[in-house]
Amino acid sequence: MKAIMAEFWGTFWLVLGGCGSAVLAASFPEVGIGLLGVSLAFGLTVVTMAYAIGPISGCHLNPAVSFGLWAAGRFERKQLLPYIASQCLGAITAGGVLYVIASGAAGFDVSNGFAANGYEAHSPGGYSLSAVIVAETVLTAMFLLVILGSTDKKAPAGFAPLAIGLCLTLIHLISIPVSNTSVNPARSLGVGVYVGDWAMLQMWVFWLAPLVGALAGALIYKTITTEEE
Amino acid sequence: MKAIMAEFWGTFWLVLGGCGSAVLAASFPEVGIGLLGVSLAFGLTVVTMAYAIGPISGCHLNPAVSFGLWAAGRFERKQLLPYIASQCLGAITAGGVLYVIASGAAGFDVSNGFAANGYEAHSPGGYSLSAVIVAETVLTAMFLLVILGSTDKKAPAGFAPLAIGLCLTLIHLISIPVSNTSVNPARSLGVGVYVGDWAMLQMWVFWLAPLVGALAGALIYKTITTEEE
Amino acid sequence: MKAIMAEFWGTFWLVLGGCGSAVLAASFPEVGIGLLGVSLAFGLTVVTMAYAIGPISGCHLNPAVSFGLWAAGRFERKQLLPYIASQCLGAITAGGVLYVIASGAAGFDVSNGFAANGYEAHSPGGYSLSAVIVAETVLTAMFLLVILGSTDKKAPAGFAPLAIGLCLTLIHLISIPVSNTSVNPARSLGVGVYVGDWAMLQMWVFWLAPLVGALAGALIYKTITTEEE
Amino acid sequence: MKAIMAEFWGTFWLVLGGCGSAVLAASFPEVGIGLLGVSLAFGLTVVTMAYAIGPISGCHLNPAVSFGLWAAGRFERKQLLPYIASQCLGAITAGGVLYVIASGAAGFDVSNGFAANGYEAHSPGGYSLSAVIVAETVLTAMFLLVILGSTDKKAPAGFAPLAIGLCLTLIHLISIPVSNTSVNPARSLGVGVYVGDWAMLQMWVFWLAPLVGALAGALIYKTITTEEE
Repeated sequence: MKAIMAEFWGTFWLVLGGCGSAVLAASFPEVGIGLLGVSLAFGLTVVTMAYAIGPISGCHLNPAVSFGLWAAGRFERKQLLPYIASQCLGAITAGGVLYVIASGAAGFDVSNGFAANGYEAHSPGGYSLSAVIVAETVLTAMFLLVILGSTDKKAPAGFAPLAIGLCLTLIHLISIPVSNTSVNPARSLGVGVYVGDWAMLQMWVFWLAPLVGALAGALIYKTITTEEE
Repeated sequence: MKAIMAEFWGTFWLVLGGCGSAVLAASFPEVGIGLLGVSLAFGLTVVTMAYAIGPISGCHLNPAVSFGLWAAGRFERKQLLPYIASQCLGAITAGGVLYVIASGAAGFDVSNGFAANGYEAHSPGGYSLSAVIVAETVLTAMFLLVILGSTDKKAPAGFAPLAIGLCLTLIHLISIPVSNTSVNPARSLGVGVYVGDWAMLQMWVFWLAPLVGALAGALIYKTITTEEE
Repeated sequence: MKAIMAEFWGTFWLVLGGCGSAVLAASFPEVGIGLLGVSLAFGLTVVTMAYAIGPISGCHLNPAVSFGLWAAGRFERKQLLPYIASQCLGAITAGGVLYVIASGAAGFDVSNGFAANGYEAHSPGGYSLSAVIVAETVLTAMFLLVILGSTDKKAPAGFAPLAIGLCLTLIHLISIPVSNTSVNPARSLGVGVYVGDWAMLQMWVFWLAPLVGALAGALIYKTITTEEE
Repeated sequence: MKAIMAEFWGTFWLVLGGCGSAVLAASFPEVGIGLLGVSLAFGLTVVTMAYAIGPISGCHLNPAVSFGLWAAGRFERKQLLPYIASQCLGAITAGGVLYVIASGAAGFDVSNGFAANGYEAHSPGGYSLSAVIVAETVLTAMFLLVILGSTDKKAPAGFAPLAIGLCLTLIHLISIPVSNTSVNPARSLGVGVYVGDWAMLQMWVFWLAPLVGALAGALIYKTITTEEE
């Protein structure tokens, strides 16, 4: 139960920090943090929470991560649904808090994106559905590869939060222009529900591609690991 | 006594580094560091000092942190006031040194902000009082959650300074446009006294919200930790 | 064999992440990540993979690194060719995936660089062949010095992936304007094959200079190490 | 002797990486790394070298650091001059290599700064001599405080290179507009000799202020440390 609550607050932080920096600070005139700052913010939500709640819940903060860890034999099936539910609730709560803060400035308009993920007309760079599917799937697969490898018992202890968080930063550095970067269905849901409309219609992509990618990542890792399980 | 002096120099560094980068370098023409650079600077003051003086004083550098640690049962009540007094003195001293340096260039005008915190007309993005209160309270709560978790005996040893400092970077990446980011009453005071006027009139927010947030963070952490104390 | 496959995926990640961020996000209007973001992305591919597959293959991801480690007596000759072949295949595969994603937006033109390395007319800043050769050779030498030192048994355990990855970030911060930065023949090949033409005609520089530099780095390290081998 | 040679290569790297990123990449059109990228580059030269040669020479790379460590009783007097001479030679050699690379593009003009340090007309932001002296002295003092604290036997092992390197990044984030940031006499000399003229006439400031600051930092650290020596 404590693990479930930790996942709630951790995913809350991921969405508040990552999407919050995008909505509030990315395009601030002249001194805005840009996509580089947003990429760093997403990664740091994971770095900070992984050190804080990693020992409590494993700090997944992402249904695709929980699913991939289960596929790799590192997470119990019976915990899968409670984790995912808690992650989604935390993400939606963060979206609400972000909505309240963002509404405090003149000119805020939630239909102007609110950091939701999308393809074609709703991709920041106008990328096609197939490009978005390829990007989200491949990037989630590599994310799982890094997660599985850096938390392997052969890896140096204590560094996994840095490796995993900075991997999320890297993934954003590559793909914000493509899909606004999801690789995390809860993150997509957490802001998408407030945008509604197209964000909910396109939501399936940001559940399907990350889950498929996570499975692929788990399978790839099995082929390269020398671990005896 | 050595701990009190360490807090003085640590908070001096936080204000000189964080506010100094904002005043001197954020808007430098064409190559300025922007809000991303300022966010990094604030975080690195904590990273560097936490490795340097962490073993001496715990490196709080922030009245809200000292208060939250006391609320969580990790800090003695009798040390609370001396720590806070020393933090405020260090912050004000840093504000003075920064004033001297900044005055060395033509066109410096302290009433032009001097990195002070504010709401409404004095929020960088014109955010309302309630948006500022929500942001400062929630962000300080999450800051305390990360501090308490990453310094917990279950967390990997040695990484807490990175997690905590990078959390402060993340908090700035989100909220500089909202309130110029405080989450630290001493930091607000350290530059606010030189701006005077509105900065002192609005100062109560940047004491109240961080202290309430710190208390909330301590309470949230109690609900998720499995620690037997 | 597992090590060979790990090198494939690791180099795939280096090219997809580093060149991908350059092609997709560096020049995105107004909020693009710039050369700083690309430099960070290249470094983070190594940081993340070194924690993930370091224990499996050593995480070279670079023919010049494998060659320099062999020259320093840290890598077996018989593994040299299989490693290099796998690195090149992984890089070319990543170039293909990147090509598919990048093609998903209107206006993509592979002859517009595709992050390939070059000199003179094909250097981002128009640098001469001799400047490119000096830069690539010296920077690869220093890269090997950092790799050999930080993985030395006298160095603190666990930090080498950070030191080596951040060294690659630093190398890019210096030299993207000069040559688009290679210091890695596989990375040059991985995107160069899709550009063809001038990228393949200039390819010899980005094999020769890094390999010579790696040898120089190995020799310099021998003169300063106190290691008894 | 190996330590002396390690200091040569380490300081070579500091000047090539830090000043090189400033000269070659800071102002690159549209995607330049800016002062934030230069700050990161300076810090990463220290992070990377401290992991690589820290166990060989202590990785000072800076006459003010060697002097401050001697003042704090952590470095032998007889090694002081050989270290400083080697640092200066490495810095000047790096300046020469950078000159060769930078000359490979049209329009290079060494009198256009070459990352030299200066005050008044030669301060990037036009800061006065007294502002430059205060900044250089105070920042070097805090630098020594972080070095002495993070390498203290009470500090967590292995993290000092990160703390010290990121401290140098932070110092640059604050003060590039003021003095182009020295806090390191060898770094000032390494590029100043190629600029000649005003850079050599103003050189005394960038020896005097860092050395005085280093002494002050050593004295401050003595007042806060609980170390029994």
